Formats: sequence, C-alpha cells, structure tokens
Amino acid sequence: MSLPQDIRITDVGPRDGLQNEKSVVSVGDKVAFINMLSLSGVAEIEVSSFVSPTWVPQLGDADEVFTNIQRREGVVYSALVPNLKGLMRALEVKLDKIAIFAAASETFSRKNINATIDESIERYRMVVKEAKQSSLRVRGYISCAVACPYEGPIDPSRVRQVAQQLLDLGVDEIDLGDTIGVAVPTDIELLYDELEGLLDPSQTTLHLHNTRGTALASVYRAMELGVFSFDASCGGLGGCPYAPGAAGNLATEDLVYMCEQMDCQTGVDLEKLFAAGRHITAALGRSLTGRVFNADGEETRTGNS
Amino acid sequence: MSLPQDIRITDVGPRDGLQNEKSVVSVGDKVAFINMLSLSGVAEIEVSSFVSPTWVPQLGDADEVFTNIQRREGVVYSALVPNLKGLMRALEVKLDKIAIFAAASETFSRKNINATIDESIERYRMVVKEAKQSSLRVRGYISCAVACPYEGPIDPSRVRQVAQQLLDLGVDEIDLGDTIGVAVPTDIELLYDELEGLLDPSQTTLHLHNTRGTALASVYRAMELGVFSFDASCGGLGGCPYAPGAAGNLATEDLVYMCEQMDCQTGVDLEKLFAAGRHITAALGRSLTGRVFNADGEETRTGNS
Repeated sequence: MSLPQDIRITDVGPRDGLQNEKSVVSVGDKVAFINMLSLSGVAEIEVSSFVSPTWVPQLGDADEVFTNIQRREGVVYSALVPNLKGLMRALEVKLDKIAIFAAASETFSRKNINATIDESIERYRMVVKEAKQSSLRVRGYISCAVACPYEGPIDPSRVRQVAQQLLDLGVDEIDLGDTIGVAVPTDIELLYDELEGLLDPSQTTLHLHNTRGTALASVYRAMELGVFSFDASCGGLGGCPYAPGAAGNLATEDLVYMCEQMDCQTGVDLEKLFAAGRHITAALGRSLTGRVFNADGEETRTGNS
Repeated sequence: MSLPQDIRITDVGPRDGLQNEKSVVSVGDKVAFINMLSLSGVAEIEVSSFVSPTWVPQLGDADEVFTNIQRREGVVYSALVPNLKGLMRALEVKLDKIAIFAAASETFSRKNINATIDESIERYRMVVKEAKQSSLRVRGYISCAVACPYEGPIDPSRVRQVAQQLLDLGVDEIDLGDTIGVAVPTDIELLYDELEGLLDPSQTTLHLHNTRGTALASVYRAMELGVFSFDASCGGLGGCPYAPGAAGNLATEDLVYMCEQMDCQTGVDLEKLFAAGRHITAALGRSLTGRVFNADGEETRTGNS
C-alpha cells in the first residue's frame, strides 16, 4: 500500500472555523491569525466568505480582512463566493481562488442557500465564467458528500452527478465535504469508487469534520486511495464552544502530526501552527480541541530521557 | 481490502482508565459502572488490578469490586496480576482471565515494575504456570510496543522478542500497547510486518491511546491487516482531568461507532455504553472525552428531518 509522499493542506479555520463559532472575532485578531497561518507553511488559507453579512455576521468583514493580511509568496488565499455580487467584492481584494458551494442533498441546498441543486448550479454559471476571465482559480465544494443533516445518508451517485455539473461549469477542483462529520473509511472508499472515470482521488480535496472522532481514519483511507489534498482547521476551530471536543473541523495539527509520522511531508511547522491556534483561541476565549496541541508537553516519541 | 466482519472489544476503563484518574472512585460506583458495561455488550471487561494498593491506590479495592459485581453470561472478566501474591488474590475472586504486563522498553520496565524485561519474564513464569493449572486464561501485555516515554521509538524487533518470551511462558494471547498514544497507521503496519511468522494479526489484541487523535486511524489500518481484537475505554477514561481531551484511552464509543458504520459488528449497544460513561464520569466529576458521546444529539446520518 503506497501512500502519497506529501499532502497539500488548506486551512479553512478563518472561514469554516470562525463561521461556526458563537463569538465574533475582531478584524485585528483575524488578520494576526491568518498571518500566523501563512508563516506555518500551509499551502492554502480559506480567508473568509463574501456571502451577505446578514447570513454570516462572523465574516462580515471579509473585505477588510483581505486588505490587511500580509500575503506570503507561495500561499494561496481563497474565499467563498455565493453570487456575482460576492465575486465583485472578491475581485476588489485580489485573491487567488474563489470557492462556490453546491450540495449533494436537495434539502440541505434549499435550507443552506435557498435554491435547488440545479438552481444553484445555474446561479454559479456566470460566477465561474467571470472568475475564469479574471484568471481566478475556482474550487467547487460539494456539501453533504456522505450524509445530510436532514436527509440522512447520501447516495454517492448524487455526489457524482453534482461533481459532473460543477466540472461542466469549468471549476478547477472539486472539494468533497463531510459536512456533519459522520464519515468512516468505508464511506470514503464508496465515494471514490463512484467517482471513478470522472475524477481520480488525486484530483479532489477532502473536507472532513471530526465530530465523531473518525476524520483521521477517513484521511488515512483516502491517502491509500491517492488523495493528497485535505482541508483542516487550525485548533479544530468550528465546534460548539459549549461542548468542548464535540464537533469542529479536523484539527490541522492532528493531520500534520499523523502525516509527518508516516513520512508524508506537509510543509507545516507544528510550533508555528500552535502559535496561530493559541492566538485565535485566546481571541475566542475558548480552548483548542486538537489532540496534538493538548498533547504538547506529554511524553513524545522522541524520548525525554 | 476486506475488513473483519466483527470485532471483539475489551473495555479497560475500570482498570487502565480509573488507574490514571486523579480521583478515587468508591466501590459502589465502580461496581455499578462495571455492571453497566456488562449490559452494554462488550466481550470482556478488565475489572481491576491485583497490584499492591501502595502502587495504585485507585485500584486497592480489587477484591471487593470483584465480589460485588454481577457476572453476565458470556462476558469475560479479567484483571492485572503482577506476581504470585496477586494471583492468589485473583484466584479467590474467581475471574476468567489474568493479564501479566511486560514491556518492550528496558527503561520503562525498570521504572514501571522495577525489573529488567528478562527479570519480569522470570517473575511471570510461575504466575502463568499456576494460572494455567487453575484453568485461567492469560493475556500478556507488551507496553511501549511503538514508543517509550523515556527511550523514544521502539524497534519492532524488540516487541517480537518479548512476544516470543511471553508465548514461551504459555500465555494465551498477546496484547500490544501503544502506551503513550503516538502510533500512526504505518507504525501498526511495521509492527505486524515484524511479527510475521510468530503471530498473525488476528492472534493479537491492540491497545491504543488517543493522545494525538490517531487511534482510530491505527485501528482501521490494523483491521485491514486482520486484527479484530481491540482494547478501549468507556468514555475515553484515563486522561488527565486537567487537560480535557488531551490524553486517555481510545474511547469505546468511538471505536463502536466507526466499526458499526463500516458494517463490522461489535455487539455493543451504544446507548447502554453511554449510560455507563455518564455514570462513571459523574462519579469522577469530569466530562466524557469520547467524540461520539459528545456528538449525541448532533445531526446524525440517519436523518432528523
């Protein structure tokens, strides 16, 4: 079984993480957090979202955040864009990539973006066209790629269908999201089995939540299948602050630890990542849920004589 | 890749979990906890340890606990036994299995049981002989099977050597322990590669701690290799109460969730396991660290329409 020799990490903490925290973080703290992430070595940072501040007040300052962060050579800076209005805002701040977000569940699509899946694809058609004309890369998210909070398990064939629709629009990459954190390794296998012929595992990004502790097991199975691009969130941001350890994105630190121990390079400096995590959790007034962060200071495999 | 169709779970919470908690739990609470675990469907329960109460005051009541629990048909009840004196105590309470504990690290062996590895094997020789004469099954633990808190990484060949010594003593099973919770899937692979010809993966039990969040990924890799016997701890007991989520055994609930979702039977009823976890964590005055327990009430894959 050969695993990838390196993986590519997109830290979605500033967007998917902060969007799901109760507290609103100041522009200054966000900028400092993102700058620290830039220094940590992650390949890409999902900085914010250009959705209406009415929907997601936590990210209402996307323009200001983008204007103030320091761009580091080689790091890709991206943001969610829901429509042409959002794209116009995005174009003003000069980012590298936008992400549009479809779902594999009709109910989730309607509840999340008030459109059927087909309507959402149509809505994104002009967004992708305009983005490409401005030389922006486009990521196409597929939410509920394993299960939906309303419909339950999602048949992988529905994911394939939406992936096909997004590829037809001209997106550069497909990001498969286990939105509610239920996936186990066999789900990952079934998903990529179904995508065969349309998308090779190495052409996708996997976005996992660690709600039930299974995210790293699913990452490992995905790596066996050839996936090397993963989303994660510094400090496991994104969980409910009232149930520590309960939900949240896969913690970037845990992903980095596992991969590096398997001789798979991530390019990330854990200490610098911890610094970013300490900064943002102090700003949120909560503790980090990542296991590796909390294990810092425990016995390590390098020995403590 | 074919996975086992069912796994066998030993809940080590009452022993490995409680031994590493600062608080001492009353006999009554332990008995209630173990009775609840018996009803949950786990195959085996490591009830306590017959080491000297001077060493492990948390488990000084082993005899009383064993006398008061209700044995459930089909469940195996076991305990750690360090020497002949401990075995005499164990024989009085009528258990099904004892466990002796060697290590793959010389430094850990000396610090943990004040004996070299070879001395510990000699010490156990009579214990195993007497236990077998009394028709007890014997588990042989190998601590630090991946890394040692003092020596760092442990060469798998040292694990093989100790496994051979334990098998020569006549133990019925070998339990490989990642004592400090550093293992990643490739460590598991290397370990079983080294054991080839001596022990098939299906003949071992794997004992993982989730200190760095990698335990389920390692379980998954082990299952691919044919391992179907795992230790876990109800509620993820065993962590430091001052760093929630930091350390602790792999939570039984998380193991059960992952396996059942992969159509691998565990025989465990999660609701009954949650009840046991709620009981013991209330007694300890702490919260459960298992992810699945904390996800209870979140959206589930079965839908909540």
